[in-house]
Formats: sequence, C-alpha cells, structure tokens
Amino acid sequence: MARRRGSGAAPSVSVLRLGHRPGRDPRLTTHVALAARALGAERLFLHPPDPALAGRIADVARDWGGRFEVVGVDDWRRTVRQFDGPVIHLTMYGEPIDRVLPALAGEKRVLAVVGGAKVPSEIYRLASRNVAVGDQPHSEVAAVAVFIDRLRGTPAASTWTGARRRIVPQARGKRVRVANAPRGRS
Amino acid sequence: MARRRGSGAAPSVSVLRLGHRPGRDPRLTTHVALAARALGAERLFLHPPDPALAGRIADVARDWGGRFEVVGVDDWRRTVRQFDGPVIHLTMYGEPIDRVLPALAGEKRVLAVVGGAKVPSEIYRLASRNVAVGDQPHSEVAAVAVFIDRLRGTPAASTWTGARRRIVPQARGKRVRVANAPRGRS
Repeated sequence: MARRRGSGAAPSVSVLRLGHRPGRDPRLTTHVALAARALGAERLFLHPPDPALAGRIADVARDWGGRFEVVGVDDWRRTVRQFDGPVIHLTMYGEPIDRVLPALAGEKRVLAVVGGAKVPSEIYRLASRNVAVGDQPHSEVAAVAVFIDRLRGTPAASTWTGARRRIVPQARGKRVRVANAPRGRS
Repeated sequence: MARRRGSGAAPSVSVLRLGHRPGRDPRLTTHVALAARALGAERLFLHPPDPALAGRIADVARDWGGRFEVVGVDDWRRTVRQFDGPVIHLTMYGEPIDRVLPALAGEKRVLAVVGGAKVPSEIYRLASRNVAVGDQPHSEVAAVAVFIDRLRGTPAASTWTGARRRIVPQARGKRVRVANAPRGRS
C-alpha cells in the first residue's frame, strides 16, 4: 500500500506542534498526533508538553503497533535549531507545496511544524522553508496529513511492528484481528 | 498549482459530516469544513445542522472567495440516497484508498462521508464504498483532506472567485492582497 514518489526511500518525518494548550483543546492536538502517526511520521514534538495526551497516544501505539511517540518539549526553538534536516513550517502564507516537494525528496529526515491560531512569528524566520498546503485558511490537521502523504504516501503494513490489533480491510463492516497475547514492540 | 491525476476533469466533491454535536465541539467540525473548502470541495452537508457554524464558514468564504457552503441536513440518509454519484464513507476499516481511487477518477461528483467517534453503523451499508485512508485510527479532518487531495490535488487559483483577500505566497512572512471594495461572488 506504500506509495513513494520518485526513487529511493522517502524522508522520515517528525512533526512539531506549537501552541498546544494543555487542558483546553486536547482534541485538535490529538488529531494532529493521530494523523501524523497514521500517515507514518516517527514522532510528535509537543510544545508545551502534555503528559496526559502523550500517554493516550502511547496507548494507541501500543495497541496498533509501530514506533510513534509524543515527545514533550519545553524549548521548541532548540528542537528546531538542533533538528538534523530541513524544518518545514506549514502555513497558508508560504510557498506552494508543489514547488517545494521535489527539493525534499532526497532528504533523510524532515521536521514539519504546525501551529495553532497564534503561532509565534519567529517560526517564519527559524524554519528552513514556509510551505502552503493550499493558500486558504484551513486546518493544521489537514495540512500535516496532506504534507506527509505527498512526501511519503500511506505507510506500508510493515510499519506497524508489534501491533496487538490489525484491521482486515472490508468492503462492508469492521473486522479486526487481535493478537492472542500482547507482544513487545520490536 | 492544480494537480490532477489522470486525464479530464477531476470529480467535484461534497462532504457529509455526521455526528456533529452543536455547542459542544465546534472546532473539529470547523476544521473539517475549512479543510474541505481549502482542498476544493463544493459543500459540506452537516448533520445535525448548526447555523452558527455555517455562518462562520460563510464569513470565511465571503472573504477568501469561491463557492463553498455549509448545508445543514436533518435527514442525512436522504442526502446519501439522493446523491447523484458514488458515496464514499471514509473509515479505517474500509478498502485501501489506493485500490479505490482509479474507479473514482471518471466520476462527475463524489460524496465523501466522515463521522465522529460514534458513526451510525448504517452508513457502512448505505455507502457505495467504505474506504480507508490508512488502516490506523486517526482523524476525520486528515482523512477527508488526504482523500480530496488524492482525487483532485490542491485547487487552482481560479477557484477563489470574488475573493476579498488573496495570499501572495512568500518564502518568509505573510503577505495578503486586499481588494479595494468588496465584490459580489461570481
């Protein structure tokens, strides 16, 4: 099911979510985290940290497999500065994604940054590039999902190592295969 | 900037959002609506109706152009039955999107259905197809965005007729061109 553009391995993706408000809007950040994981990102850096949310996502990853993790960060500027690859700030004000993608295809790893309504303006300067997934107001959940999908396609089934639960795709209804005993993550 | 797969015009897309809870979780439905609009859908059917939310999205469409609208529906089953094209229920339990997309490319219009946590099980039977954007738990915002992007690509600039505000893409910072006088929607 994996869809890769171009030749060679696609870059691995980490996501940095800025402007999370612990205790106030867990669902949108939860959607960012779940979408990032489902599309094959490796981790979500979350500023400010939210251990409760990280725990809920860890539960999902334990059940459904793979290595995704939520990493709380107090100093997001350091996360951006120390990242070993291009830092792509997703914003409606940036360059069209179609123009930027070819330059990213050869990278080993990419950090995608999404904010909420009040993203610190510094990020426009600190990012390697500011990239628009459409030049219209929309959703950081949608932007990060489309960005990762364009870069990597949907993940191969082999991504979900150690899964306790696996879906058996159906034309109608739901079918889930549950492992007999919990397995450790490989 | 438009990216079309295959030859000919891509199908137009309407979205049906089930399980909205007016007054309780406006933001997730708002994100579904904004993502659908930004990716080029024509309308969001919303069940149950939420005039306040529809009004906020109408404000966005008035400022930023195009014809997107939120249509409240009391009887979502009728919306599904009367839709003149394939009805695609987006669910992690369905058939892989890669397998389904080629069959949709020749359609004139497609209805994408997304639910919340508690989607009525009837929809699995009423839909033409149940389709998975990745076989992992994630986000209806992400699923609908990736689905439309795969089907149509990002919208051409000509989509946003009558816009009062247009972004001028920038490598750094924000630039918006504001029309001198409000224009009617064409």
